[in-house]
Amino acid sequence: MHHDFAFQIEASQSGARAGILHTPHGLIATPAFLPVGTQASVKTLDPDELDHLGASIILANAYHLYLRPGAETVQKLGGLHAFMSWRKPILTDSGGFQVFSLAHLVRVDDEGAVFRSHLDGSQHLLTPEKATEVQHQLGADIMMTLDECAPYTADKEHHRLAMERTHRWAARCLKAHTALESEVPGPRQALFGIPQGGTFADLRRESARTLASMDFAGFGIGGLSLGEPKEVTQEMVHEIVTFLPPEKPRHLLGVGSPEDLLEGIARGADTFDSVLPTRIARNGALLTPDGRMNIHNARFKTASGPIQADCGCHTCQRFSLSYLHHLFRCQELLGYRLATIHNLWFTLHLMRDAREAIVAGTFETFRKSFLERFPRTDPQVQQEQKAKWLNSARRRGSSMPNDII
Amino acid sequence: MHHDFAFQIEASQSGARAGILHTPHGLIATPAFLPVGTQASVKTLDPDELDHLGASIILANAYHLYLRPGAETVQKLGGLHAFMSWRKPILTDSGGFQVFSLAHLVRVDDEGAVFRSHLDGSQHLLTPEKATEVQHQLGADIMMTLDECAPYTADKEHHRLAMERTHRWAARCLKAHTALESEVPGPRQALFGIPQGGTFADLRRESARTLASMDFAGFGIGGLSLGEPKEVTQEMVHEIVTFLPPEKPRHLLGVGSPEDLLEGIARGADTFDSVLPTRIARNGALLTPDGRMNIHNARFKTASGPIQADCGCHTCQRFSLSYLHHLFRCQELLGYRLATIHNLWFTLHLMRDAREAIVAGTFETFRKSFLERFPRTDPQVQQEQKAKWLNSARRRGSSMPNDII
Repeated sequence: MHHDFAFQIEASQSGARAGILHTPHGLIATPAFLPVGTQASVKTLDPDELDHLGASIILANAYHLYLRPGAETVQKLGGLHAFMSWRKPILTDSGGFQVFSLAHLVRVDDEGAVFRSHLDGSQHLLTPEKATEVQHQLGADIMMTLDECAPYTADKEHHRLAMERTHRWAARCLKAHTALESEVPGPRQALFGIPQGGTFADLRRESARTLASMDFAGFGIGGLSLGEPKEVTQEMVHEIVTFLPPEKPRHLLGVGSPEDLLEGIARGADTFDSVLPTRIARNGALLTPDGRMNIHNARFKTASGPIQADCGCHTCQRFSLSYLHHLFRCQELLGYRLATIHNLWFTLHLMRDAREAIVAGTFETFRKSFLERFPRTDPQVQQEQKAKWLNSARRRGSSMPNDII
Repeated sequence: MHHDFAFQIEASQSGARAGILHTPHGLIATPAFLPVGTQASVKTLDPDELDHLGASIILANAYHLYLRPGAETVQKLGGLHAFMSWRKPILTDSGGFQVFSLAHLVRVDDEGAVFRSHLDGSQHLLTPEKATEVQHQLGADIMMTLDECAPYTADKEHHRLAMERTHRWAARCLKAHTALESEVPGPRQALFGIPQGGTFADLRRESARTLASMDFAGFGIGGLSLGEPKEVTQEMVHEIVTFLPPEKPRHLLGVGSPEDLLEGIARGADTFDSVLPTRIARNGALLTPDGRMNIHNARFKTASGPIQADCGCHTCQRFSLSYLHHLFRCQELLGYRLATIHNLWFTLHLMRDAREAIVAGTFETFRKSFLERFPRTDPQVQQEQKAKWLNSARRRGSSMPNDII
């Protein structure tokens, strides 16, 4: 067990970095992808399976765990690692994204954000101090500051005010964190600051500079991929990263498609999380170097081969496309698991390959060759899908789509 | 791999037997419980997990697999073992129970049974020859004859006619089986005959005697546990078993609660199958020596211990009641799996303990001591639950409840 938090950059190539992140629960070779365990479970998977897949860190959502089973309950049960029986590092977000960007926000002022639970409508106040305390109770290795996520469509003045509040909140999170660290014994937790500023390059620069001057262990890059074109997302990542201290790690929140991961790495992000690989798996979309494969397609009914001939995952080693097709047609729960295993294997191995390419100095070739083969989802289609998804999440009255399948 | 089908009785004690069943895909130590993989998947579990749980044989439903993906498709893909990646023995039923006892039966005459698919309403004819062919295509180690399952409430004349037809069909199954065996190379499959006769002891005796005189490798005991009181079920099992050849194995269909398993063993049944342990697991009912535990109960929210302190299953070794409670509250798919693992471990170990007790000559003590501690579900309540379940299955228009969770 390493009781220090540290980051070493081993190699870099035109912005992309290969590093090692030290945390109390172990090392993370970066670039790294974090499977998302929203409710302290990466849907369908056992922690042992995550381990075998090579996941070195996962993300859990403070918002969900605060509401259920409660952060105090998790603390009493020994913290998130013990609660879910996962011994490797965990990153928690602050809950801000769930409270702000989706639904149930009652009001926000300098004190904090008042929101209603998507579970029972009960009213809660989330302050920077509370968000920090909750994450301390959960006991994650990496925690995030509470930020105000203004809607993508808000005007510049709205974004400026949200950014300024985000800075004040970041300072309060840091102060609360320092106080809690000194009170409680145990391994040190690392707090990451999150610059805001929407899609305004000058705001993003100002925010990155401001937070860079504060004593954070690393930085989250958030408030992006909320509806803006992908080129804008990538430009903002570039703007932010340029003003962050190069020696500290950067986590790009909510990014997980193969193409976006490679673009994020190219722009200097070190770690990433997204429900994408696991969610699309449960919908029957399987990742391959040639794009997404829909297992529901009738042509797989009699396909005796695996998803991908050269894939080393448990699913490809043991099961045929025909069996997976059958499980999905029958809505057998095993199907969702086997698809999740494959997509996470694919994603985690993509990160490993990217890392090796950075170390070998061949990342640009690797990235281009991957992207040439992997068909990009049409950006227009992608935005429409995202908008549809966000709308349906709002309609369902859920602050965060919490799909069972 | 053993290419012969044989049964050796190692020990017996006042009716209960401990044996070894040889099949083309391996040995089965009896008494044995067969987890049910209706649609070629024991719900939520990977074949490796079943293996680790100590399952030595599973059951798959010919009715479901005939409809989806189709027995020919399974055959083309190398048979059921290859299709689902399960290397140990498999038993298939004939499909008769699904066609007769639940719904969608259009008409039945000596030729066979005409039924409608619960999936698309398409009409199918199931004859003894067809049922045998389908099971040959699936390639199970143990197959069952097509029997006419009259409703529990039918009068004696109805049951007599159904029994007589069952005898004619059994002979036709045996003939078809013998012809198919001689045509097709490969490991020998064993065909079990199923006596009928409802809850009429004289009919059951007559049926058992008639089938006992035919060349079956073993016998299924079916058409029971359909609504009659438990004492009647047990009496019928006793009546049937008395007239079956003692050297051949007996499979009691559809029995899987701990108390019923022990009663069945006591009456000379060797193998058992039921969805009970896996279905109640997905509903949050966990088996323990002290009865069923409802994981939804609020008292488990902060329970840091396992389901059962002395249980060796993966779930009890790694996860707390509080975590399981949380997963069920959140409807996380992992919860259904972890509960299934525990219930199957409990059931499979109960069978192993029963076997050891028979060999040691202490089965009666073992059975009594288990039943004294394990609270019996009130028979009245149990019958009401079963009736409710059957009705709801009919209402849903499903020939067999095919619950996703």
